[in-house]
Amino acid sequence: MRPIDLRSDTVTQPSPEMRAAMASAEVGDDVLERDPTLARLEGRVAELLGMEAALWVPSGCMGNLIALMLHLRRGDRFLAPAQAHVLGSELGTGAWLAGGMPEALAWEGGPGRPTPAQVTKAAGSPGPYYTLRTTLLCLENTHNFAGGTVTPMAEHRALVAAAKAAKLAVHLDGARLWHAAAALDLPPAALTGGVDTVQVCLSKGLGAPMGSLLAGSKALVGEGRRVRKMLGGGVRQGGVAGAAGLVALDYLPRITEDHAKTQRLAEGLRGFGIAAPMPETNILLVPVPDAMAALAALEAAGVRALPVGPAVRFIPHRDLAMADIEEALRRIEPLAPVLRGA
Amino acid sequence: MRPIDLRSDTVTQPSPEMRAAMASAEVGDDVLERDPTLARLEGRVAELLGMEAALWVPSGCMGNLIALMLHLRRGDRFLAPAQAHVLGSELGTGAWLAGGMPEALAWEGGPGRPTPAQVTKAAGSPGPYYTLRTTLLCLENTHNFAGGTVTPMAEHRALVAAAKAAKLAVHLDGARLWHAAAALDLPPAALTGGVDTVQVCLSKGLGAPMGSLLAGSKALVGEGRRVRKMLGGGVRQGGVAGAAGLVALDYLPRITEDHAKTQRLAEGLRGFGIAAPMPETNILLVPVPDAMAALAALEAAGVRALPVGPAVRFIPHRDLAMADIEEALRRIEPLAPVLRGA
Amino acid sequence: MRPIDLRSDTVTQPSPEMRAAMASAEVGDDVLERDPTLARLEGRVAELLGMEAALWVPSGCMGNLIALMLHLRRGDRFLAPAQAHVLGSELGTGAWLAGGMPEALAWEGGPGRPTPAQVTKAAGSPGPYYTLRTTLLCLENTHNFAGGTVTPMAEHRALVAAAKAAKLAVHLDGARLWHAAAALDLPPAALTGGVDTVQVCLSKGLGAPMGSLLAGSKALVGEGRRVRKMLGGGVRQGGVAGAAGLVALDYLPRITEDHAKTQRLAEGLRGFGIAAPMPETNILLVPVPDAMAALAALEAAGVRALPVGPAVRFIPHRDLAMADIEEALRRIEPLAPVLRGA
Amino acid sequence: MRPIDLRSDTVTQPSPEMRAAMASAEVGDDVLERDPTLARLEGRVAELLGMEAALWVPSGCMGNLIALMLHLRRGDRFLAPAQAHVLGSELGTGAWLAGGMPEALAWEGGPGRPTPAQVTKAAGSPGPYYTLRTTLLCLENTHNFAGGTVTPMAEHRALVAAAKAAKLAVHLDGARLWHAAAALDLPPAALTGGVDTVQVCLSKGLGAPMGSLLAGSKALVGEGRRVRKMLGGGVRQGGVAGAAGLVALDYLPRITEDHAKTQRLAEGLRGFGIAAPMPETNILLVPVPDAMAALAALEAAGVRALPVGPAVRFIPHRDLAMADIEEALRRIEPLAPVLRGA
Repeated sequence: MRPIDLRSDTVTQPSPEMRAAMASAEVGDDVLERDPTLARLEGRVAELLGMEAALWVPSGCMGNLIALMLHLRRGDRFLAPAQAHVLGSELGTGAWLAGGMPEALAWEGGPGRPTPAQVTKAAGSPGPYYTLRTTLLCLENTHNFAGGTVTPMAEHRALVAAAKAAKLAVHLDGARLWHAAAALDLPPAALTGGVDTVQVCLSKGLGAPMGSLLAGSKALVGEGRRVRKMLGGGVRQGGVAGAAGLVALDYLPRITEDHAKTQRLAEGLRGFGIAAPMPETNILLVPVPDAMAALAALEAAGVRALPVGPAVRFIPHRDLAMADIEEALRRIEPLAPVLRGA
Repeated sequence: MRPIDLRSDTVTQPSPEMRAAMASAEVGDDVLERDPTLARLEGRVAELLGMEAALWVPSGCMGNLIALMLHLRRGDRFLAPAQAHVLGSELGTGAWLAGGMPEALAWEGGPGRPTPAQVTKAAGSPGPYYTLRTTLLCLENTHNFAGGTVTPMAEHRALVAAAKAAKLAVHLDGARLWHAAAALDLPPAALTGGVDTVQVCLSKGLGAPMGSLLAGSKALVGEGRRVRKMLGGGVRQGGVAGAAGLVALDYLPRITEDHAKTQRLAEGLRGFGIAAPMPETNILLVPVPDAMAALAALEAAGVRALPVGPAVRFIPHRDLAMADIEEALRRIEPLAPVLRGA
Repeated sequence: MRPIDLRSDTVTQPSPEMRAAMASAEVGDDVLERDPTLARLEGRVAELLGMEAALWVPSGCMGNLIALMLHLRRGDRFLAPAQAHVLGSELGTGAWLAGGMPEALAWEGGPGRPTPAQVTKAAGSPGPYYTLRTTLLCLENTHNFAGGTVTPMAEHRALVAAAKAAKLAVHLDGARLWHAAAALDLPPAALTGGVDTVQVCLSKGLGAPMGSLLAGSKALVGEGRRVRKMLGGGVRQGGVAGAAGLVALDYLPRITEDHAKTQRLAEGLRGFGIAAPMPETNILLVPVPDAMAALAALEAAGVRALPVGPAVRFIPHRDLAMADIEEALRRIEPLAPVLRGA
Repeated sequence: MRPIDLRSDTVTQPSPEMRAAMASAEVGDDVLERDPTLARLEGRVAELLGMEAALWVPSGCMGNLIALMLHLRRGDRFLAPAQAHVLGSELGTGAWLAGGMPEALAWEGGPGRPTPAQVTKAAGSPGPYYTLRTTLLCLENTHNFAGGTVTPMAEHRALVAAAKAAKLAVHLDGARLWHAAAALDLPPAALTGGVDTVQVCLSKGLGAPMGSLLAGSKALVGEGRRVRKMLGGGVRQGGVAGAAGLVALDYLPRITEDHAKTQRLAEGLRGFGIAAPMPETNILLVPVPDAMAALAALEAAGVRALPVGPAVRFIPHRDLAMADIEEALRRIEPLAPVLRGA
């Protein structure tokens, strides 16, 4: 029995079109000059995001890290929604490498979302010389560990406005910004208003084998290119990966299909009496009595998922058809007692 | 009108005895070998704390910082009660310099105090290679920004036990551990059970002009001596400061006098209809409608205090007599409307 | 006129075989588990180098950086030959990120090579607690900025022995170790004797579009995987790049062709009265009176090169045939006065 | 037999005047506001050095470290004379903490002194985005490990001019600037021309128990105050140490007495056939066949010194009279064979 892999939307295989694009990519030395395919990808993504410029990086972690390194100095505090990826899932680099002291904002605006008032309060006013300066707000849209939750455009703008009023820079971790935009039926650029930098991922949901982009002003992206080299993210003929990335963008109009699969999965689980919330995008977090036990049972039944705290996380993706979701539900049904804690 | 300075217990003047001790201190080069007076102070404090060894440092910030540098490596997470000094009042050094990603624990055990269950949950279990490792619990007793609150001995032990069960090291920020011990009528060593390192301050409440100590095992203190040199805290004839510190320890039996002054201040304020809580030690946090307005009015009336978020903080100390507290109350009485928000 | 690009052996285009391999690579999520093609590449390279294990990284800079991060702690000094890549060409990451204080060793053993006696002397003996500890020797074979110079096997072993006698770890920057081995007609593993870690590059000389490997013990490589994730070098279906890397290794037997091209270039230049040394591998450093003027003249004549201090660097590579070298010489001949300073 | 301690000029005892000053110092909380005695000391030293402002720090290491932290960012290179204190004697903090990649300049201008041409060459011109930027020149006057050698005023100015022409900031480690000025019969301010920051020490030669000052522009010193707090160097009633520092400055006119003692020591040793150079200030470096053997013999004979590489270092100081030097020579005479390697 082939397992149905719902651990992450990063497990997708590059499509035949991506493979063909890699095989025929026009490339150059991206350290010494610019790889033409990476340059094209960077231009295309900057345009999609409504930003001046963009920089390809091997991973979303590096994109977020570079952004934080650009924005923060020792003695700075940065704000981020509780359980943001930059807080708990990047090995502390925002702290020890980018030099920032993090402050987690509780989700008073909804799952994964602080309110503008929280931003204003946490930013505070400048204190004496011996106090932390709050200089950055990190947002995450969709918010992964809140369950792929969407920050709507008006709310995004209000958060950015609160940050700017307090003279904070704003970085948006938009690893799955595509999904937020699709859920709201908006172009991605509608959700980047006012941010200084935004990171988007080509390998989460879109299917590229690797690569993210960090977008911002020309000046920030230029300095980011230097930081990328520091971290070891400067590659030579990166266009082979970039070519797959360009193809991956073609999946944007189909992202809602993944949302539909996720909805179906949630409905099916609820039909079994399992406490699945209704997902907003392609992530489904199901609280279970014992995550490790549940994952083991699922694995044995041919369904793979990952733990997120006390919950089990399922992420349908482009390599799974609706029929795979139905099959997953069939496999899960006998396990319902384990997942619902009956 | 001489202002009554209640901003902090750090504003105290060295006593005549301290000054005499500084003038006659036996000293040596503490970098090349050991300054005899510092060595004596270090031995005395280690004994008071029930630890193997101790190291003099110029400030409490340096003591905490060295401890965190000893315990943490990049990729480590550390836990601390919300609003702990190491989180918000040390310019982020726990993050950018000691390399830790902080996680603030809400005060579910009482003001300033997390519960052992929170420690257990936050410590979690070891994850895959790409996840943060939680390796350290920082405690703070008394907890400054909770209002000088005391963690009782049994609770301290339960927190340490939870940490140890999760294989965490424990650092105790005991800048005012003296006050916790006095409030509980226990020797300080009763409140260090199981910790790996503890920092205590000679200039907060005890009146020394400068200096703190970091205590721990001989091995940790030995490595701490090296880190102290890195940070620029290695001084030559430090015994001149150490001599004052030895005298400062004589104040330990009189700390309860400061608690009594603080109680009196709280009662007085309550008598004016001001929402002062009953203090546990020498810190009184009074929530007010507008801290900046309240401080300005107090200053104009000859009473000095500091803001702590939306509250005004008063810290009575050894340089103030009970009569000074009564005088402060007389000066504050006309301002009561500003402080109670009527 | 198509320029002849001798700036670096990193400018090569992926071969048709590499492109085909990328298009058909078997891949998986290398963060969550192991990408099978990367795993195969890592195994193959570990074997070639005679090391227990290896780790793919996007760039040689990241490979060196991870190694230094594994070996160094704050307060450590590391030794490296003067003008080593880790000293001057990695944006100081060995210092600010890996935490080491570098000490450059003059080339007393030949161009690019310190002597074992220098290592012994620089390592010194352990000093008091307030002194730097020397803990690491970095070697570079071939040495890029010395002109692709080779450290012979016996000399390598003597350097390692001196380091080990002084209890230093040894990291070998073997970005072009392939070229050293080819020049000596030895297998690469003959030049890694005794090292703790070695970095080799697939995009320098071998033609892969990106990627290097860091090899060492299983334990070090395991910890390196964690550090790679920190730096943002953990990618998902990295096997697409890995597949090209596996093909690139097929070029190893042909590396001597590049050495022959470089020899021919040197001879030709000497025929024009230009002070070109006899190259040991594929790098030719030609001292000129004015590097910027020389490079401009070369560029105008259709020959591209890079400055290395006061010299012009030429690196013939697999994308250039011997006929291209002859054509380059024809283009350079009229410029001889500029290059020889007549 | 009381040992004659020539290990360092840091071993001096505070004088009775210093002790009296400490006992009567006017002090305040230097974190919350300004300690009046520290403020007076800072003003006095700024004036002596011809700088806008100065900041007291517990140690010279911290003063240098703060300066480097102010001047450097990751990706920056700094230049310093070979064997400078900031390179080898501060536990690598210039690298790992201040973030700079060091480049040691050989002593082509005389012992301890690079030439302006070396500065110009090492500073280079700005390279591509992926290259180190050289941004700082550190000078050291007198140069400790060169043997207390003096950089004359004209040479200092030429070095600074070369640095400024290359857009480098300049930090002067003037731990013993007093001695350079005394040797040249100039005011200290004559040797700070053009520097951005300068660190001077009160405990080296002047006899204060602790403390150094970092001087510079008001803006740099203001930011330095913040960095000092980060490192744990912010103390409360630091005026007790500051008072001793103010008294220590009274020794400035007598520094030449220490130079005379050092001269006498050198002459005496030469009289025994020992290869002692003629010292320029208060440091005498005597090359010996076996430094450890020599130090052990000296210690047994009641003379204490320290090793500096293959040499023995003697530093006469204010606590030793000329008669002590004569006595030291009497004790050393029988050991002459050990020191001269006969």
